Amino acid sequence: MSTATPFPILINGAWCASADPTGTFQATNPATGELLPGTYPVSGPQDVHAILTAAAEAKAAMRGLDAEVRAQFLDAYAANLEAAKDALVAAANAETGLPVEPRLGSVELPRTVNQLRLAAKAVRARSFARPTIDTATGIRCQQEALDGAVLVFGPNNFPFAFNAIAGGDFAAAIAAGCPVIAKVHTSHPTTSRLLAECAVAAATATGLPAGALQLVYRIAPQLGFEMVESPAVASVGFTGGRDTGMRLKEVADRHGKPVYLEMSSVNPVFVLPGVLAERGDALADEFSGSCMMGAGQFCTNPGFVVVPAGDAGAAFTTAVIGKFSAANPGVLLGKGGRDAISESIKTLTAAGATVRCGGNPVAEPGYRFENTILTVSADTFLKNPEALQTEAFGPVSLIVIADDTAQMAAVAASLEGNLTGTIYSAVDGSDDDAYAAIAPVLRGKVGRLLNDKMPTGVAVSPAMNHGGPFPATGHPYFTSVGLPAGIERFTMRCSYDNVRAHRLPAELQDGNPLGIWRSVDGDYTNA
Amino acid sequence: MSTATPFPILINGAWCASADPTGTFQATNPATGELLPGTYPVSGPQDVHAILTAAAEAKAAMRGLDAEVRAQFLDAYAANLEAAKDALVAAANAETGLPVEPRLGSVELPRTVNQLRLAAKAVRARSFARPTIDTATGIRCQQEALDGAVLVFGPNNFPFAFNAIAGGDFAAAIAAGCPVIAKVHTSHPTTSRLLAECAVAAATATGLPAGALQLVYRIAPQLGFEMVESPAVASVGFTGGRDTGMRLKEVADRHGKPVYLEMSSVNPVFVLPGVLAERGDALADEFSGSCMMGAGQFCTNPGFVVVPAGDAGAAFTTAVIGKFSAANPGVLLGKGGRDAISESIKTLTAAGATVRCGGNPVAEPGYRFENTILTVSADTFLKNPEALQTEAFGPVSLIVIADDTAQMAAVAASLEGNLTGTIYSAVDGSDDDAYAAIAPVLRGKVGRLLNDKMPTGVAVSPAMNHGGPFPATGHPYFTSVGLPAGIERFTMRCSYDNVRAHRLPAELQDGNPLGIWRSVDGDYTNA
Repeated sequence: MSTATPFPILINGAWCASADPTGTFQATNPATGELLPGTYPVSGPQDVHAILTAAAEAKAAMRGLDAEVRAQFLDAYAANLEAAKDALVAAANAETGLPVEPRLGSVELPRTVNQLRLAAKAVRARSFARPTIDTATGIRCQQEALDGAVLVFGPNNFPFAFNAIAGGDFAAAIAAGCPVIAKVHTSHPTTSRLLAECAVAAATATGLPAGALQLVYRIAPQLGFEMVESPAVASVGFTGGRDTGMRLKEVADRHGKPVYLEMSSVNPVFVLPGVLAERGDALADEFSGSCMMGAGQFCTNPGFVVVPAGDAGAAFTTAVIGKFSAANPGVLLGKGGRDAISESIKTLTAAGATVRCGGNPVAEPGYRFENTILTVSADTFLKNPEALQTEAFGPVSLIVIADDTAQMAAVAASLEGNLTGTIYSAVDGSDDDAYAAIAPVLRGKVGRLLNDKMPTGVAVSPAMNHGGPFPATGHPYFTSVGLPAGIERFTMRCSYDNVRAHRLPAELQDGNPLGIWRSVDGDYTNA
Repeated sequence: MSTATPFPILINGAWCASADPTGTFQATNPATGELLPGTYPVSGPQDVHAILTAAAEAKAAMRGLDAEVRAQFLDAYAANLEAAKDALVAAANAETGLPVEPRLGSVELPRTVNQLRLAAKAVRARSFARPTIDTATGIRCQQEALDGAVLVFGPNNFPFAFNAIAGGDFAAAIAAGCPVIAKVHTSHPTTSRLLAECAVAAATATGLPAGALQLVYRIAPQLGFEMVESPAVASVGFTGGRDTGMRLKEVADRHGKPVYLEMSSVNPVFVLPGVLAERGDALADEFSGSCMMGAGQFCTNPGFVVVPAGDAGAAFTTAVIGKFSAANPGVLLGKGGRDAISESIKTLTAAGATVRCGGNPVAEPGYRFENTILTVSADTFLKNPEALQTEAFGPVSLIVIADDTAQMAAVAASLEGNLTGTIYSAVDGSDDDAYAAIAPVLRGKVGRLLNDKMPTGVAVSPAMNHGGPFPATGHPYFTSVGLPAGIERFTMRCSYDNVRAHRLPAELQDGNPLGIWRSVDGDYTNA
């Protein structure tokens, strides 16, 4: 344990010294391997208990709050983030190695600000509430906040946009009307602290209940499970690795709590013969750029590419290998991620894949991994599809070489659930039969189907799906990115049957006092 | 094992002799305790394997099918049920003891027919699909069928309306576009067989893929779990007891499959002091009728009533005891249910409740239980809320006597998740403060909040919620009754990103060729 006084944690909306730290830690700069200033506590049971007590009390305060206050908080928080941009970007760059530009400053922070503002807009429009009125029976219903706090676990790869105290799950939970308990990622505590300071200031300015905002930096796993089990916690949002996600899911499932996990995905890309003939070189460029962007540390990184056997496929593979070999390895988020890539590559090669370039960590200082391409025949893949879908979270992709369209479709049929699935096909129509054979199979395996475009970008769009069948997520109905749908995750269906008119929530009252979109007897109206 | 040839099971849309029956069984008439004619097989692994193989093949056929065929099938099935009414009602009456009138003939069968027709209407309107178009990014999304069959487990208490081959889950799964594997309830095989014959005829007439309809009568539990685990099964719909539901949930959760359970609920009713003064006698009537209807075997049976201490509450309790004692005990669905009531009453009395009337099984022949009222003080309840929320599925209710409004609110706060919660209050406004204290607490615990009305009726309304927080169901976002929402359970979110215009599903094409309601840039339009 360091002798420096650790930063306080956020309990019931106020910064409090950890009551029972079981240790302290500092973040590491992954570009250099050096410890960064700032000592943070590992919280013990007393901290967790205080947080759960405050969360239980905050539930009623949030339920009684005018929804407009939630919207005002989200807007104020967004403005505070813009004002704090320089400090936030500097902290995140030091803690994650992600470039200031073109990433943290001009892309990820604005995206995060935008998410908060869209969440505010969704609150005002109640677009997540789905108000429904059946005049024949007099029954009305809408989606309302779950009966407790949302425990959010943030990942390492988006220090702003998926941060447990600022990102998509946070914005969605507050918009729904739930208190948040943020377990921020241990790799970027200073970034998270600076974000939380902006949040606290916005809460104070707008009157958000104090207990709606709470944060711990690090806890023992057992305390995390205890939080999931607590009656104060109604739901869990998690973005991260599959092992941790599955352990959280098991606990949440046992207690019947909705748990939203975004875990692993290899994001298959199918490159059909015709498009290779039309523009194989350009595709090799496009794919390589997408796969190495951010050192490959995107949930939607194209880590699995199916190409046809033969000269065109081989030329594509050779071109990709050339680009991967020529590019400098990017800085990874940390040592753990680097070592996990090595483990994944071991699994892939043990299952029959061949390393064609890269395959090794780069010498320290700093944490990097060689840009890596593996190949395997579809024959081999189909004999061991589970191991050969192992995700290597980084600048790594497995190229699967298929004999024909039928084999490509068989590969698609063997896939686990993924966030995305992509098909590149010729514009001259020569791939249309192959597309028709593969797309319907792929459709059922992925949350988002793309044509002619790499999956890496995840637009914050009402039609986005950053979700998909297990194991990509825990429930294929929902998305973690995109509003208002992301907010729906933290709501429950609430019917009102014969409830007296003056007791109905405004959303469901006659005359539509809020002027929102509602479904009335099967038709939508905002009148 | 009986020597009679057992009826065949339904594999891949055709009636086939069980390949490896591990036994046979006959249904029992619960009114008399006598075995009914008709021998049915207990299916073994070969049957299950054949069913799973057919289900896996049916998935693609269903995906490729014009949605209109699904609608035509649902309509044709509804018409076939109407034509077969007399035989269906006679079989269900013999197997369940539920009265022909006013239940099976004029209520439950028409309800089942109506559900199928509403599902057909929802298919045509795509009202479950939630098509969403974001013109700024070009991304589109909708809900589409899950990638596999839905395994439906039907309960004993609604031989038509929740039957695994005809009821709400069946209609929803077919409407969504999923094949169904029906595990019908063992207590009413002949009713289920007659329903399935109507379904097969409708499928043949309309061209529904053969593998969309499959049915087994009875299997060993382990084979049920193996079906849940099979890649051919994408989701599970279950209505029944909590123990079985939780075991199915554990298996489905482990495999990341959406599982929709409708398990147990005591359906709390709060009777405030003012309304007792206004019309206590009428309320005692209303409550008693609701609780004893169908021998209390409704998911929404009011099994838990909170009344104020003092003369008015005591008079209400006395009046209810009088009515319960005077009424003839109804026929229960079977011996198992009768014995389970005894067990529940033991649990309740061990936890401090007192039997005030009834409390014992009625002598055979036939399976009946005395109409039973227990009472307990709220003090005692609050010391042991878990045991005192034990459901007794039958004509049984626990009256909880609370000192004041604060204690009523404390009782509400101690409740598990329930399907319904009801508050009766005075029309003169004297209960308004109490209502304001209790309703927000109760709201978060129940799927449907009622005023001044018993919860027993569950209208098939687009605004109905037959759902609620755990353990009433497995996920509080969804409902099993009410269309189109019930259909959404068996869908996954499907985004289309840059997908070429002619490859988009009709629901998402420019120009809205289907003329359906869609969300376009945040506004709803059917233009």
